[in-house]
Amino acid sequence: MDSETIAAISTPVGEGAISIVRLSGDEAISIADQVFNGKNLQEVTSHTINYGKLIDPETDEVVEESMVTVMRAPKTFTREDIVEINCHGGLVSVNRVLELVLSNGARLAEPGEFTKRAFLNGRIDLSQAEAVMDLIRAKTDRAMNIALKQMDGRLSKLIRSLRQELLETVAHVEVNIDYPEYDDVEEMTNRLLIEKSQKVYDQIEQLIQTAKQGKILREGIATAIIGRPNVGKSSLLNALAQENKAIVTEVPGTTRDVIEEYVNVRGIPLRLVDTAGIRETEDIVEKIGVERSRQVLKEADLVLLVLNYGDEFTEEDRRLFEAASGMDVLVIINKTDLPHKLDIEKVKEVAEDASIIETSILQEQGIEQLESEIANLFFEGDLNNADLTYVSNARHVQLLKDAKKTLGEAMEGMEAGLPIDVVQIDVTRTWEILGEIIGDTVHDSLIDQLFSQFCLGK
Amino acid sequence: MDSETIAAISTPVGEGAISIVRLSGDEAISIADQVFNGKNLQEVTSHTINYGKLIDPETDEVVEESMVTVMRAPKTFTREDIVEINCHGGLVSVNRVLELVLSNGARLAEPGEFTKRAFLNGRIDLSQAEAVMDLIRAKTDRAMNIALKQMDGRLSKLIRSLRQELLETVAHVEVNIDYPEYDDVEEMTNRLLIEKSQKVYDQIEQLIQTAKQGKILREGIATAIIGRPNVGKSSLLNALAQENKAIVTEVPGTTRDVIEEYVNVRGIPLRLVDTAGIRETEDIVEKIGVERSRQVLKEADLVLLVLNYGDEFTEEDRRLFEAASGMDVLVIINKTDLPHKLDIEKVKEVAEDASIIETSILQEQGIEQLESEIANLFFEGDLNNADLTYVSNARHVQLLKDAKKTLGEAMEGMEAGLPIDVVQIDVTRTWEILGEIIGDTVHDSLIDQLFSQFCLGK
Repeated sequence: MDSETIAAISTPVGEGAISIVRLSGDEAISIADQVFNGKNLQEVTSHTINYGKLIDPETDEVVEESMVTVMRAPKTFTREDIVEINCHGGLVSVNRVLELVLSNGARLAEPGEFTKRAFLNGRIDLSQAEAVMDLIRAKTDRAMNIALKQMDGRLSKLIRSLRQELLETVAHVEVNIDYPEYDDVEEMTNRLLIEKSQKVYDQIEQLIQTAKQGKILREGIATAIIGRPNVGKSSLLNALAQENKAIVTEVPGTTRDVIEEYVNVRGIPLRLVDTAGIRETEDIVEKIGVERSRQVLKEADLVLLVLNYGDEFTEEDRRLFEAASGMDVLVIINKTDLPHKLDIEKVKEVAEDASIIETSILQEQGIEQLESEIANLFFEGDLNNADLTYVSNARHVQLLKDAKKTLGEAMEGMEAGLPIDVVQIDVTRTWEILGEIIGDTVHDSLIDQLFSQFCLGK
Repeated sequence: MDSETIAAISTPVGEGAISIVRLSGDEAISIADQVFNGKNLQEVTSHTINYGKLIDPETDEVVEESMVTVMRAPKTFTREDIVEINCHGGLVSVNRVLELVLSNGARLAEPGEFTKRAFLNGRIDLSQAEAVMDLIRAKTDRAMNIALKQMDGRLSKLIRSLRQELLETVAHVEVNIDYPEYDDVEEMTNRLLIEKSQKVYDQIEQLIQTAKQGKILREGIATAIIGRPNVGKSSLLNALAQENKAIVTEVPGTTRDVIEEYVNVRGIPLRLVDTAGIRETEDIVEKIGVERSRQVLKEADLVLLVLNYGDEFTEEDRRLFEAASGMDVLVIINKTDLPHKLDIEKVKEVAEDASIIETSILQEQGIEQLESEIANLFFEGDLNNADLTYVSNARHVQLLKDAKKTLGEAMEGMEAGLPIDVVQIDVTRTWEILGEIIGDTVHDSLIDQLFSQFCLGK
């Protein structure tokens, strides 16, 4: 076990009323006490908050006013001693406090290191740890609920029960290997094996099927708005952003060019692609052409293709349909307030089975229908199934797919009457793969890599 | 007294490990208890932190895991009951927690309302409250130290002692009015009055003189880098930003266009103006012309005018000097690594008394000297006078100027032998003006306006 005491800023970076510098480890309390002018932190009761000044012991200078929370192991997030120094917010202030504890014996925590310690010390399993990060990054309530349930151990429980069933299957195999003289045992065992395996297989498949929706709820649907100049793309963008709460996220540590913009459509986060491109051209005649649209489409899961009701169907429109072919498309015929000129039959022809929605964004018509079409397209309207256990993490999905494949091979072997100890290898391997989801059978390097994706201070 | 219980997110907005929703008021503990599944918060010891789940009492749904700190009045920041709900960071998560307490009886706090209550409940005075905000917005250690000292009541103490002296002066006047028959008392009083007033006057003047530096330390020096294309403006910008810790601040609630960039030069924050303009043209030949420079100069306190050592002095250079005339200018002759072509005598002629620094940013030469020239220009090298009480707040500076003027008028009156009760009016008025700094004699509307500039949750 790494016994160094770690420290990091645990609140988001920026100006705010309160920022927290968190320490965890054997020396957490003594380090905090060295720089704290108030009660003796080594003697205060656990889980108390204490007012005092932070003093640089080298210069005797007051660094900050603070409230310091002392939490003694093992009843803490990391199961180690934890100290949280609440200081006035502000970049300079909180950085000085961090520097103070670092120069008095703490080491700067790596991203995710607090949660990693919680995992390594057995407080939470790996899928719960991953849910902590999902919770922080959640873009909508629905995504947050998935993360909360996963954090609560719901997915872990399901995975554990699947592993238990596999273990029982293996136990049956062992019986068979131990008593090969009973022929009927073998036959019964084989039938039972296939039955039990099938049950586990079905549950794995069901979980994988939640993955597409889980991923969407977690990461959002990358949505491109395309269309000829002046069909109303920027108005649509604004309508979606205004009707719904727009969530703007800046990816930390990067330039402002990668600010992502989300809108929350009935619990589904739409991540709008190239909003800058659309906004730039807001006031002048829009000029996003087919070429730029092609670029934008590369990143998109969903295409909103906008046409003008008051205009002929043009060759450029047709080329946009071609560019979007094979993707999830919703066709929006906008400006129904204008005199009718668009040949709807021609649109239906090129739209194939894509839904067509008529809107007048100017008159605020059709936007509701558009939103329900989006919900339908990805959730078949079934967005209220709050009880479903979603798999939303790409790592989990891949492991489930691997488990399904391995178990499928085992079942084929059973059907084909392969020697039972050969089949056993695949079943055991499936059990191991599922274990990786909750971190029971997982390599150190993977753990390091997983937690390094966390934000600092968590 | 406003007895409503208020709530707000008190940590900076963004993704982070921990976010805090803070409540203050009579109902703070009972509201938190309603949504908390854990210990009975109404019965826990004050200043303890308690683990539990946040539950929406309407739906019984788990909203979050949390650590809840209970602090009972009067030993709190606001002198009211305070509850701090520490939850997992993330925009959605912390907003849901806020909504939860709002729908269970708390009211959304106005910006600065927590600090306002601390002031109204007599925990801190007005200049201390203002320092809280300065501390949060501090861009460098030096600015933070000024704020910390002000928060600690250092400015308040000085102002109080000045007011005390004025009060004693008024008392003398009263004596004189009460016993007009003693001529020698009047004469002595008058001399003493002038003497005492002069002492206060000098101290006010001294404080005002710290204001320019105080403002700089607090808000930074708005610095423009101008020069013809290809003289090395962007290299200079990068050199300053790399040598020193660049501080990038996004002004909350506004678009990304107003991101401000600071570099910390020997404790002085330089706020670089139009870095976007310079950065945009980084890779191609720079093309910030005289016209754009003129725009940039409008906002600047300091001009870094860059010339090319390896090039003739041009008409465009001369026009840049003209545009910057009357401002604080440092002339940088860059690219001293190139063969000498620039007519230094001509530069000296147009530069008048501006300092000229030769640099080769490519070879990392001259940057140190540039930095010390900047420090000299604004602090005459005297940056280590940490004991000085700086006035950094525009409101305070204005009040001090008013006080100086009023007291000056009183002193003129004394010299001119005006009736002592006339003089008394001005002295009393000075006493009142100084009182506004610490909030002793201040209007409600001013208080509202002041605190509304605070950030939410403070």
